[in-house]
Amino acid sequence: MSASKDIEQGATFTPKFDSDGLITAISQDAVTGQVLMVAYMNKEALDLTIKTGNAVFFSRSRKRLWKKGEESGHVQKVRQILVDCDQDCLILKVEVDQGQCHVGYQSCFYRALKPDSLVELEFIAEKVYDPEQAYKK
Amino acid sequence: MSASKDIEQGATFTPKFDSDGLITAISQDAVTGQVLMVAYMNKEALDLTIKTGNAVFFSRSRKRLWKKGEESGHVQKVRQILVDCDQDCLILKVEVDQGQCHVGYQSCFYRALKPDSLVELEFIAEKVYDPEQAYKK
Repeated sequence: MSASKDIEQGATFTPKFDSDGLITAISQDAVTGQVLMVAYMNKEALDLTIKTGNAVFFSRSRKRLWKKGEESGHVQKVRQILVDCDQDCLILKVEVDQGQCHVGYQSCFYRALKPDSLVELEFIAEKVYDPEQAYKK
Repeated sequence: MSASKDIEQGATFTPKFDSDGLITAISQDAVTGQVLMVAYMNKEALDLTIKTGNAVFFSRSRKRLWKKGEESGHVQKVRQILVDCDQDCLILKVEVDQGQCHVGYQSCFYRALKPDSLVELEFIAEKVYDPEQAYKK
């Protein structure tokens, strides 16, 4: 197989990290299918995720490994890791017991563009926990 | 509200494009919840998507606008656009009638890391169309 065909049709996991050493990772609720959040992993974060079974990301703002839930307690138990055709994006199928967004919602995607608007958002979810309490711990 | 609070808790759509002028966009089947693909949009692609109701991306490899389905006919009708807390990632809730991955699968995520393996993938889907036929048209 050519390199490209091998990446797309082969059975070897060869995640493609970008020029910053990162790969996009989507956390999706393994039960409901809801997309919870999108974050990034470097190789170490991915290895730790596979090894520990809990999602570990690389925080671009804090420039360090970020074990999801290390502050809030809202961990993600990884049940399956999917990779896309060109192996530059991952989906983590996760089990969660609490809201996953630091703003207080179950998912980071709690707003949608209003129909026929270019700028106005509508809220499509309710908060499921109080972040001020969760991050005080 | 502070700028950050406004972005996270406000009702104004202010998509954050990265240094290359791109924002990550996840296409998710509006009916089944399956994540179909992950691509990128520049402002023009996003505006065209909103205006036409069909997903338009920016192809990083071809460095040009890419109307999803322009070759294969596998368009994505956009029913809703969600944005995440920091407004640097979008979900397109889409209706599709055919496979969305150029390799022939319904979703680009047709492989998963085998349990207890760091390198071995297993196929979790069957092809739903023949790409050689679709891209010949």
